[in-house]
Amino acid sequence: MRIEDLNWMDVEGYLKHDDRLILVIGACEQHGHLSLLSDVKIPLALADAASQQTDVLVAPTVNFGCSPYFLAYPGTLSLRLSTLMDVTEDIIRSAFGQGFKRILVLNGHGGNNGLKMRLGELANQLSGLKIQWYAWWLSHSVEAVALRHDLKPSHANWLEAFPFTIVADLPEGEKLQPTVPSDILDAETTRQVYGDGVFGGLYQAPPEIMQEMFDACLADILQMLKFE
Amino acid sequence: MRIEDLNWMDVEGYLKHDDRLILVIGACEQHGHLSLLSDVKIPLALADAASQQTDVLVAPTVNFGCSPYFLAYPGTLSLRLSTLMDVTEDIIRSAFGQGFKRILVLNGHGGNNGLKMRLGELANQLSGLKIQWYAWWLSHSVEAVALRHDLKPSHANWLEAFPFTIVADLPEGEKLQPTVPSDILDAETTRQVYGDGVFGGLYQAPPEIMQEMFDACLADILQMLKFE
Amino acid sequence: MRIEDLNWMDVEGYLKHDDRLILVIGACEQHGHLSLLSDVKIPLALADAASQQTDVLVAPTVNFGCSPYFLAYPGTLSLRLSTLMDVTEDIIRSAFGQGFKRILVLNGHGGNNGLKMRLGELANQLSGLKIQWYAWWLSHSVEAVALRHDLKPSHANWLEAFPFTIVADLPEGEKLQPTVPSDILDAETTRQVYGDGVFGGLYQAPPEIMQEMFDACLADILQMLKFE
Amino acid sequence: MRIEDLNWMDVEGYLKHDDRLILVIGACEQHGHLSLLSDVKIPLALADAASQQTDVLVAPTVNFGCSPYFLAYPGTLSLRLSTLMDVTEDIIRSAFGQGFKRILVLNGHGGNNGLKMRLGELANQLSGLKIQWYAWWLSHSVEAVALRHDLKPSHANWLEAFPFTIVADLPEGEKLQPTVPSDILDAETTRQVYGDGVFGGLYQAPPEIMQEMFDACLADILQMLKFE
Amino acid sequence: MRIEDLNWMDVEGYLKHDDRLILVIGACEQHGHLSLLSDVKIPLALADAASQQTDVLVAPTVNFGCSPYFLAYPGTLSLRLSTLMDVTEDIIRSAFGQGFKRILVLNGHGGNNGLKMRLGELANQLSGLKIQWYAWWLSHSVEAVALRHDLKPSHANWLEAFPFTIVADLPEGEKLQPTVPSDILDAETTRQVYGDGVFGGLYQAPPEIMQEMFDACLADILQMLKFE
Amino acid sequence: MRIEDLNWMDVEGYLKHDDRLILVIGACEQHGHLSLLSDVKIPLALADAASQQTDVLVAPTVNFGCSPYFLAYPGTLSLRLSTLMDVTEDIIRSAFGQGFKRILVLNGHGGNNGLKMRLGELANQLSGLKIQWYAWWLSHSVEAVALRHDLKPSHANWLEAFPFTIVADLPEGEKLQPTVPSDILDAETTRQVYGDGVFGGLYQAPPEIMQEMFDACLADILQMLKFE
Repeated sequence: MRIEDLNWMDVEGYLKHDDRLILVIGACEQHGHLSLLSDVKIPLALADAASQQTDVLVAPTVNFGCSPYFLAYPGTLSLRLSTLMDVTEDIIRSAFGQGFKRILVLNGHGGNNGLKMRLGELANQLSGLKIQWYAWWLSHSVEAVALRHDLKPSHANWLEAFPFTIVADLPEGEKLQPTVPSDILDAETTRQVYGDGVFGGLYQAPPEIMQEMFDACLADILQMLKFE
Repeated sequence: MRIEDLNWMDVEGYLKHDDRLILVIGACEQHGHLSLLSDVKIPLALADAASQQTDVLVAPTVNFGCSPYFLAYPGTLSLRLSTLMDVTEDIIRSAFGQGFKRILVLNGHGGNNGLKMRLGELANQLSGLKIQWYAWWLSHSVEAVALRHDLKPSHANWLEAFPFTIVADLPEGEKLQPTVPSDILDAETTRQVYGDGVFGGLYQAPPEIMQEMFDACLADILQMLKFE
Repeated sequence: MRIEDLNWMDVEGYLKHDDRLILVIGACEQHGHLSLLSDVKIPLALADAASQQTDVLVAPTVNFGCSPYFLAYPGTLSLRLSTLMDVTEDIIRSAFGQGFKRILVLNGHGGNNGLKMRLGELANQLSGLKIQWYAWWLSHSVEAVALRHDLKPSHANWLEAFPFTIVADLPEGEKLQPTVPSDILDAETTRQVYGDGVFGGLYQAPPEIMQEMFDACLADILQMLKFE
Repeated sequence: MRIEDLNWMDVEGYLKHDDRLILVIGACEQHGHLSLLSDVKIPLALADAASQQTDVLVAPTVNFGCSPYFLAYPGTLSLRLSTLMDVTEDIIRSAFGQGFKRILVLNGHGGNNGLKMRLGELANQLSGLKIQWYAWWLSHSVEAVALRHDLKPSHANWLEAFPFTIVADLPEGEKLQPTVPSDILDAETTRQVYGDGVFGGLYQAPPEIMQEMFDACLADILQMLKFE
Repeated sequence: MRIEDLNWMDVEGYLKHDDRLILVIGACEQHGHLSLLSDVKIPLALADAASQQTDVLVAPTVNFGCSPYFLAYPGTLSLRLSTLMDVTEDIIRSAFGQGFKRILVLNGHGGNNGLKMRLGELANQLSGLKIQWYAWWLSHSVEAVALRHDLKPSHANWLEAFPFTIVADLPEGEKLQPTVPSDILDAETTRQVYGDGVFGGLYQAPPEIMQEMFDACLADILQMLKFE
Repeated sequence: MRIEDLNWMDVEGYLKHDDRLILVIGACEQHGHLSLLSDVKIPLALADAASQQTDVLVAPTVNFGCSPYFLAYPGTLSLRLSTLMDVTEDIIRSAFGQGFKRILVLNGHGGNNGLKMRLGELANQLSGLKIQWYAWWLSHSVEAVALRHDLKPSHANWLEAFPFTIVADLPEGEKLQPTVPSDILDAETTRQVYGDGVFGGLYQAPPEIMQEMFDACLADILQMLKFE
């Protein structure tokens, strides 16, 4: 159940018996051969699946995140971290003021991590607000699936190659992990280093592994939605 | 052709022969009986249609706009204008740096109007950038269609009741235009004044009128995409 | 009665029986052959006239507004919209804290329109504050006068040519409306398009029409000052 | 010659032979029995006098400054320092972009002093810009006049009691300097400490002393306008 | 060699043959029984040691970081992330403008991690700047030492109990890892959860292990200072 | 007693019987032949001495201030004033929330003066907070010592040449006061004007005068710490 499919009377009705909200925050950035919006599509798919089982509302997605290092890859549209923090604060304050007290942020992008600090600042200001943060690819669940199948999860490799993020034929086989300088890279250097944008490893994994991983993340989310 | 359906190589290819981008900026706010995301859905539908005819790229949508006056309607998620200006500046700077020189902003929401001032500031800073701004419901085209059919366009009435924004049965008939105080309303007062959120007029119009209006707006956009 | 002609004891006395304040926000920008401060002078003249009849206090003027597009015309001194919003918020918070509860903003400049969004944000925060916004040249009153005399109101044409804004001999006759590109113009292009800065139409109107228009706007303001 | 009495063509003509500008930055704050706008009126009178002798242009005044400590005195309208810095930066950038290279800031208010830091930041960014800063009441000239007549200059006492700042009968005689706590005072405490708002000393001085002081300051300004 | 022990001529001399700078960014926050400034003291000790071997300059420390979740522990003095990003940007721009081209940021505090995003934004703006980021406790070196001795590194436990961070007798033995809710905690809840502020594990480790860990981190830093 | 030598339990204990805090705010900027951190070292030495006699807590130092005009002297690391205001606000809010109600700011640097305005803004917001501000070199005490010994205090001359700020041999004798343009100088010009960075006068004074001055300032601080 997405907010976009409801009108305000529906949301008012919802708030009479529930106070939870799922907020997907992603990025519009290069994902190698995959969709530029992969970091939105994956957590949104998880949100939709979780919502189907729990009826928890899903807010419209924040489609842009912090990707200054990928700006030399066309199609990457990046926010300053300060901007993203303001966006998220405004959304959460809006929702909180209407009675949403438990918010699960499904973050789809590593560069958004600094956002958690603003959420912590908000937690000190909005008494009674509970915020959960889930970054699916960092979960123990994903780690376990990857280990089980001897796969190495990495940006834009098999890890993110879901049916709904694939927008072109994927290369066969494996990409060698590039040698990455240890300094904080500017966009031009990042592109020189990463070439096609994949951080290395297999380009794709069998569908059943992708499903297994998806299901494991979904289980995490269902658990988190209990806000225990 | 939406960026979300492409990878960065596709966008790089695109930029070799075109430098245009459509950016939809909407709002997540009460629309009476219609979808809370109507202000995104309508310009996005127009963008998709225009893209189909021109192959111009469509960026991911900015799903939130400025709606402080509607915050007492649950589901309204509003940005401060300063936040929205930063979001838009960051996106445009990202795109401009990659070679997008002509950007058509399809604005879906009246409260976002102040944004044009930031765009003007950017126009002074980014030499060679061309920005068009289109607010479909303020167009002569919509005015003409409304006049032709003796309809009065207003927030959340028939004007915005497209098949893809209708999420519930719409009331029959017409709403009397409420008496609106002339001062700048806070959210609570706004809700008292507007009740169901519609600003008055017919709740719906025949599908062929909606199509006529859509087509007229589309024609405007196709014209603007020439950037003449 | 302007604040500049009073000391604080006077204002304290005033607040014992009234809580209204008129705040003029203008611009310092090219007005063709007219004064660069026309957008302050006109609403201030209205404010003074209204104050004479009602004894409502007039705050010092905000002499700068948002005019990035006119910066290639010497003498235009423009604020970023974010700056203007902060200025206005600070003034209103100051006044509200002292007991001014009803504030009429007389805006003199179209580029300041985005400011209304910040006022809406403030209305949500300052309980008991009432803000009116009046942009004289957009009023039905001005429209009616213009229609009655078959005149077309436009930036820097007869519409703003009051005795107190005229600083040089005005051209005779009429300026053809220039062909204006539809995109958001940078300052250089704006100057190329508009030449002498007038947006077209007659350079001046007979004094009695100007007075008629002034009186009509004044009547509007007197009505608004009732804060009904 | 004030910008408000000119149109843009006049300013363009001016810039062909001169690149100086006087910018008055004041405050709207309690001045005891004197005008709430004394901090604008005094430097503006000086600016007008200097302009009469030199033909240097005078920009519209910034009518608001930083006076958080006086907010408990009705009529005080105060900006945050961050706001005032932004206002001044925007004005100076506008003017600099049009060819004003030498700007004399006539500051009328002690609380605005922090502004100089932003001016220093700007001096590093805008190559070729020269900014002078003059705070008349801190000048050696004023000190000398005060010493000569055995007067002690202080906020809102005789020092600022010019014919054009007097808006009410002034008390006879002298106010004892109040005992002032050494800490940074909030607005309520400030008012308790200062009572009528005067910082002590004689309420007025003979007109010829006021003139002597004015002339001395004017001479300073004329010297500074040489930008040597 | 710390900047505080030099004058500007010394630094000018240094810049003739080197362009590296070490910048320590820490936090002032609860560290259980350890010094509130542990997050500064540890990276500073490493910086000093590295400087002794390489003569690379050490800038004054940024003594405050982002710790909103620890604000209920007295002595924690926390910056908003936006503030910390501005501080760091200002320092780096200052240094870069003088010829420092390679900057190693020794971060001492996990809550500062979002700062990397601003550094990435700067890397795109300041051509020729190289920034390294080192968070000692997340290094493979520390992980290896901990594994070798079967110790679990955690906030304020043995991991940070260096001779120079110990300011009180440390408890004997081990603290059970508290059960931590998965949501983003406000400060009050954080204190309830963590009690004495230690995240669990042994309170101290033998000095030789601490030295081993210190040496391993120092080796990392010496390697990074090569900026290869 | 510095916070860095305590853990949070110590601070909690302290707050049971005292609510005072000393906050040193300095600068990292050229001081001629003296330490680049002189503006921190001097107030910190005073803070330590005062703390020894009163047991009042000393917060970690803010090591950076506003010195845009000195940026052409290597080693000067300057914050924008807006940044410094945010840093100080964040620290004071943190401390105030934990029970520190009386804060003495020991400012070490003239360029930080604008900060007082933010402190005044905070005083209006944080009810019950008392803030003292002490700029040692502007004190009557220093003036008296200087007069007594016929010395002229100035930036980086004898005034700041304490044993703990001397990092190199100081020149003998006296520097002529350079001729300083009256405008707000950019960094390059400042360096041309001031050469070695000293503002003129004797390079050093006898140790007993330095001690006399130190003691006089210390006495001031001890008096201020009574918060009478």
